[in-house]
Amino acid sequence: MADYVYGPGRNHLFVPGPVNIPDQVIRAMSRQNEDYRSPAVPALTKTLLEDVKQIFKTTTGTPFLFPTTGTGAWESALTNTLSPGDKIVSFLIGQFSLLWIDQQQRLNFNVDVVESDWGYGADLAALDYKLRQDPSHSIKAICIVHNETATGVTNDLSAVRKILDKHRHPALLLVDGVSSICALDFRMDEWGVDVALTGSQKALSLPTGLGIVCASPKALEASKTAKSVRVFFDWKDYLKFYKMGTYWPYTPSIQLLYGLRAALDLIFEEGLENVIKRHNRLGTATRLAVEAWGLKNCTQKEEWFSDTVTAVVVPPYIDSAEIVKHAWKRYNLSLGLGLNKVAGKVFRIGHLGHLNELQLMGALSGVEMVLKDIGYPVKLGSGVAAAAAYLSNSTPLIPSRI
Amino acid sequence: MADYVYGPGRNHLFVPGPVNIPDQVIRAMSRQNEDYRSPAVPALTKTLLEDVKQIFKTTTGTPFLFPTTGTGAWESALTNTLSPGDKIVSFLIGQFSLLWIDQQQRLNFNVDVVESDWGYGADLAALDYKLRQDPSHSIKAICIVHNETATGVTNDLSAVRKILDKHRHPALLLVDGVSSICALDFRMDEWGVDVALTGSQKALSLPTGLGIVCASPKALEASKTAKSVRVFFDWKDYLKFYKMGTYWPYTPSIQLLYGLRAALDLIFEEGLENVIKRHNRLGTATRLAVEAWGLKNCTQKEEWFSDTVTAVVVPPYIDSAEIVKHAWKRYNLSLGLGLNKVAGKVFRIGHLGHLNELQLMGALSGVEMVLKDIGYPVKLGSGVAAAAAYLSNSTPLIPSRI
Amino acid sequence: MADYVYGPGRNHLFVPGPVNIPDQVIRAMSRQNEDYRSPAVPALTKTLLEDVKQIFKTTTGTPFLFPTTGTGAWESALTNTLSPGDKIVSFLIGQFSLLWIDQQQRLNFNVDVVESDWGYGADLAALDYKLRQDPSHSIKAICIVHNETATGVTNDLSAVRKILDKHRHPALLLVDGVSSICALDFRMDEWGVDVALTGSQKALSLPTGLGIVCASPKALEASKTAKSVRVFFDWKDYLKFYKMGTYWPYTPSIQLLYGLRAALDLIFEEGLENVIKRHNRLGTATRLAVEAWGLKNCTQKEEWFSDTVTAVVVPPYIDSAEIVKHAWKRYNLSLGLGLNKVAGKVFRIGHLGHLNELQLMGALSGVEMVLKDIGYPVKLGSGVAAAAAYLSNSTPLIPSRI
Amino acid sequence: MADYVYGPGRNHLFVPGPVNIPDQVIRAMSRQNEDYRSPAVPALTKTLLEDVKQIFKTTTGTPFLFPTTGTGAWESALTNTLSPGDKIVSFLIGQFSLLWIDQQQRLNFNVDVVESDWGYGADLAALDYKLRQDPSHSIKAICIVHNETATGVTNDLSAVRKILDKHRHPALLLVDGVSSICALDFRMDEWGVDVALTGSQKALSLPTGLGIVCASPKALEASKTAKSVRVFFDWKDYLKFYKMGTYWPYTPSIQLLYGLRAALDLIFEEGLENVIKRHNRLGTATRLAVEAWGLKNCTQKEEWFSDTVTAVVVPPYIDSAEIVKHAWKRYNLSLGLGLNKVAGKVFRIGHLGHLNELQLMGALSGVEMVLKDIGYPVKLGSGVAAAAAYLSNSTPLIPSRI
Repeated sequence: MADYVYGPGRNHLFVPGPVNIPDQVIRAMSRQNEDYRSPAVPALTKTLLEDVKQIFKTTTGTPFLFPTTGTGAWESALTNTLSPGDKIVSFLIGQFSLLWIDQQQRLNFNVDVVESDWGYGADLAALDYKLRQDPSHSIKAICIVHNETATGVTNDLSAVRKILDKHRHPALLLVDGVSSICALDFRMDEWGVDVALTGSQKALSLPTGLGIVCASPKALEASKTAKSVRVFFDWKDYLKFYKMGTYWPYTPSIQLLYGLRAALDLIFEEGLENVIKRHNRLGTATRLAVEAWGLKNCTQKEEWFSDTVTAVVVPPYIDSAEIVKHAWKRYNLSLGLGLNKVAGKVFRIGHLGHLNELQLMGALSGVEMVLKDIGYPVKLGSGVAAAAAYLSNSTPLIPSRI
Repeated sequence: MADYVYGPGRNHLFVPGPVNIPDQVIRAMSRQNEDYRSPAVPALTKTLLEDVKQIFKTTTGTPFLFPTTGTGAWESALTNTLSPGDKIVSFLIGQFSLLWIDQQQRLNFNVDVVESDWGYGADLAALDYKLRQDPSHSIKAICIVHNETATGVTNDLSAVRKILDKHRHPALLLVDGVSSICALDFRMDEWGVDVALTGSQKALSLPTGLGIVCASPKALEASKTAKSVRVFFDWKDYLKFYKMGTYWPYTPSIQLLYGLRAALDLIFEEGLENVIKRHNRLGTATRLAVEAWGLKNCTQKEEWFSDTVTAVVVPPYIDSAEIVKHAWKRYNLSLGLGLNKVAGKVFRIGHLGHLNELQLMGALSGVEMVLKDIGYPVKLGSGVAAAAAYLSNSTPLIPSRI
Repeated sequence: MADYVYGPGRNHLFVPGPVNIPDQVIRAMSRQNEDYRSPAVPALTKTLLEDVKQIFKTTTGTPFLFPTTGTGAWESALTNTLSPGDKIVSFLIGQFSLLWIDQQQRLNFNVDVVESDWGYGADLAALDYKLRQDPSHSIKAICIVHNETATGVTNDLSAVRKILDKHRHPALLLVDGVSSICALDFRMDEWGVDVALTGSQKALSLPTGLGIVCASPKALEASKTAKSVRVFFDWKDYLKFYKMGTYWPYTPSIQLLYGLRAALDLIFEEGLENVIKRHNRLGTATRLAVEAWGLKNCTQKEEWFSDTVTAVVVPPYIDSAEIVKHAWKRYNLSLGLGLNKVAGKVFRIGHLGHLNELQLMGALSGVEMVLKDIGYPVKLGSGVAAAAAYLSNSTPLIPSRI
Repeated sequence: MADYVYGPGRNHLFVPGPVNIPDQVIRAMSRQNEDYRSPAVPALTKTLLEDVKQIFKTTTGTPFLFPTTGTGAWESALTNTLSPGDKIVSFLIGQFSLLWIDQQQRLNFNVDVVESDWGYGADLAALDYKLRQDPSHSIKAICIVHNETATGVTNDLSAVRKILDKHRHPALLLVDGVSSICALDFRMDEWGVDVALTGSQKALSLPTGLGIVCASPKALEASKTAKSVRVFFDWKDYLKFYKMGTYWPYTPSIQLLYGLRAALDLIFEEGLENVIKRHNRLGTATRLAVEAWGLKNCTQKEEWFSDTVTAVVVPPYIDSAEIVKHAWKRYNLSLGLGLNKVAGKVFRIGHLGHLNELQLMGALSGVEMVLKDIGYPVKLGSGVAAAAAYLSNSTPLIPSRI
């Protein structure tokens, strides 16, 4: 079957998810179905559940590999730990935190929304205030997106933990790590995160289809009394099958299990810390290019800069959607649209997952050409030069090739 | 990465799901991620939503391609059409109907369970009785598994419809078609099915990961007032994105979309009616073999015989789990275990999906050898001969090769 | 792209080459090109050249991985060791030995053809006689096909070596091991074979594209003075690049190198001796089935029975080509045609490469049905029963699953 | 199996072959073996032989798809048309013409070598002179490399034809089109080329393994009397099987046949003329970058500039091999080494095959960084800016996306 919109050469995929899949993973997934009740699949699953904890930096957490997306992982995190009517504090800083809050409301929680302007991080002063005002511990959970994919804002989770600890507040800390985990520094145990979650198509660089949820012992305990209705997303069924050693209450995707195995192997081969450093290099290089182009980062303060996605603000006389369209139509470059409040105002460069310096340089060069084509007075080569000046000083040799 | 349990030659996959994937589909899925917000993915999705209706035999239904499993599809069918406390009639005839009923109860419906002995079909006389006793139409839905995968029992859906019609009862008809749709004769419109669902890893012969749900206009109407809590599985979000022409409220699996395209293309190339006839041939051949071996079919009456799975009853002195283990350990043959009430008593031969006559013959021959190895006095060649006598008279020439 | 002749289910590939490729190998080959002058490809090549010697059972031989077919491998074996006009003794016992002799003649060697009736092995008495008559050692080489693929005849190479040794004759021993090496017992060093060769699409279970030639020290010595014209097939160029550590005088197929790596890994995981035993089981089972059908093996004596291919003689009133056609058209079963002298008289069942017992049983059952369809009075199930009786007693447990 | 030298992100493959394979082609090739004697493979082959003529721009030529490399295709071109001792004129302008001449000499032709300095095109004045001095037509063939891959020099074939015509000289015109056909303007019929050849791993963007040779009617005629010894590479065997409609004298690679089908489909979808224009764009952009870096093109005159490969001369104080090594070790960028006379003096950027503008920009940016790292005073961004200025004005919209 032909592709619908064939263009010569590779697609340059720079949306902030789904991201580029390593060929090794595509190969590992190009396989037949298997009987998931044979001894082979549980044996594989066991290694996955053990190893996936490393990307959460947890030794005490219990992971669940749901056949779902990030939206499903959200639902699993919420319904297993909370009961209808529970009061939760939730930060609205962009489209994805907005969608999660929408879900929280539809699941009938009592959501105290703390809103920031888009481009700003979570208002932690408000959190501090709210916890102080809650000596009775009526707040059952804090919900926060680690990295808001719509604006390129990374929240400071260790600061959240400090505030909770300061008030000795027992609220659960539920974290959307969809565009952070396995790319940004994330420390489940150290930061006392109770539920963390991600999706396979983000920094893990797999196809969509796994919603990976990791629960702290405290979250597991909470799940025993949480009254939210749940079946498909219920941890209890998984825990029962974990105990039996067969692991799956219903049929998993054999292909995604082998894919996850391959993805983890590659991450461990590179080293998780090196993966995180690589994302920092790519993020920094992108920001330097944006600056050289004379454009603004949607993210308003350096402390929130995201190493997985950069939302670039365009001048008022340009429609950012035109940039995204043109990039795709002429250069086979896939950029992210501005969403909701920033629709038309920003475009996004995703720089997460299986990606290296020269792939990014090709994309940055493409953005420059698009900007010029679209009428923005960019100096061709300026962004690439700024990125290159940084990268040529900071890119390490590939260890296996030294 | 090595396989965990390598054996020479192919695995003979005869569990009733997940099933054998055509190489064409594996190829179509062996691909990179794509930006699902580019014009290409909606264009592809549009053809899928249109074409998938054919396998449900509906022109009026609205399909949803959930990134989930059959269990999730169940949940979507129920929560979008019913409200907590709603009275429903549900038939318990084996492990999968049991699991669905468990879900129905956990979702807080008022489930009137109509139980049959395992190996028997749904008790339609009871349905007739209950509907007659319900002039006030307190029963909101009838839930029935078309083909019970645990026992190899196919229920008569047209009879269910006739009973509903006889009583002019407006209850919704919700059908689990997981191991039937695309393999058995299924007619959504003609039989007035309100929600039908299947999973990608069954007769569609894909990997696990798509829960395909199809809703009648009446079901869509019901979804507007149904009060069950739902977000991930909510049809409303899909319908909103259908309207916008972008189709996806959250990230789909690009690979499964291309895979579904390829799977449908193959089914249409063979012809859906020919696919159904092929399943009938394979089912008939299997039953003839079982009879020749002197073993009983778990299915108690011919009218319920399933063309997608045969549950074979073993003599009391044999543990059917040993048969499954031995088949896998010695002959690389994957058979289905007996589940719950029939654990140890039956083993199952799945014969659905992308499968042809000689693949089945290899498996039947394998079962014979296993039976002999395990101590059952089978006459080697007897089952294969019976199946061959039938198949050599009924297998048509492959049309593309005539 | 659609397949040209789509049929549901898997193709049952039972021609004696090309054979079934393990999924692991298809996966390993599903990859991009690479720069073959980077350090990675020589590193890979080095392991291949070292490990491939094991399938020849040689420690002293030098292997060459030519990007060619078996026909090219023949040409490489001959032109590197012989000069035009050289006298060679060559055995004609079937179509493939005939084709090799045709090549020998066209390459201008003085070929003394020792012919046997098709179905018989090489006439070793004639060899004995000829060597005795050659005290001046005018015979430069003995050319023999280890396993004649057209008739299913395996020659006794150790006997050839004994005759050469008896006469202390220095003639080179050149062996076509195309349908034997990696499936039948083959011992290059022990039997004093000077050049042995095979093709990737045979027992190695790869795609076509590698002609693997292995030269003894004596053959390498001969290559220094051999005057046959050669460039592409010249060992000298390879040896020069071996010395430099870059290994390739021209561009290899990256995909086949990774494929060969995977194929060897699987063979070593199973164990070469177990691979050979498996072929013996499959060959024996096939012969038992043929006997049960009341048909004759084309091979005239048990000592020549081939464990990689069985040529089955059909009654005079049947055209064996019809069997092959019908098998393909109705059962998606690929059998081998009778070639040349035995065209119309035999059909061939290839049972080599990545294949297990139940795959063979499916094929044997298919042959039974074809025989019946075509008008031969076969007792359905008879061959399968005979094969099963043998296999159920001799098939070992899969070691990784015990 | 792990890769030998894993690095994160994609390898940037910019050697002048083997080149980047489209994912569509990798998919098409990820498949099982098939019986090449079934009707399916000849049906496929027929379409290939017909369609492959288009990339040669011939309607009268006869193509051969040899399972071999470019070196084998050379051998096939020479041995089928010439006899030992035949006088041929051959142009030596770089490493690949040198290797072909070496083959010509080893095949015992009487080679009149016309040498140019490396970086210059074929000395056509010398050809003019030689033909004038040959009224007896003792020269049997002119051998010329269309595009010398070692120096990035494209010869003017239409000028060669004009000189032959001017002298009404009947010598055969044999052309190595390995790094030109399907990327540069090549017109077999119009230019009176008698044998043209290419390899699958070049502009066709396939794996290595097909040597594609196309013979004019005059060349076919010559093959009837040519006395060079040949078997594997003999056109006669192919012609015999073409006539029978089975096409293959020996086993082809099923995978490469399907791969070629997919590759041709993509080329025709883009349009051959568009493919050639794309190569011109990429070549031009590369040359502009080289100029901006202040470096020299190895090619000495604009008329010889190659649109498939650019050989870049480095200053004397730099070893070009270090550039290649460093690019691979730090940036996962594969560049071509300088060969033989230009070893250490040039590095090569291959820009042929399945490649688009932004892929090239990534590579050019990588070269800049390598140059800086290695101590050459390059202005970062300079080459990329020059290339971008040109490309943003000349890159067309992707037709399927307008």
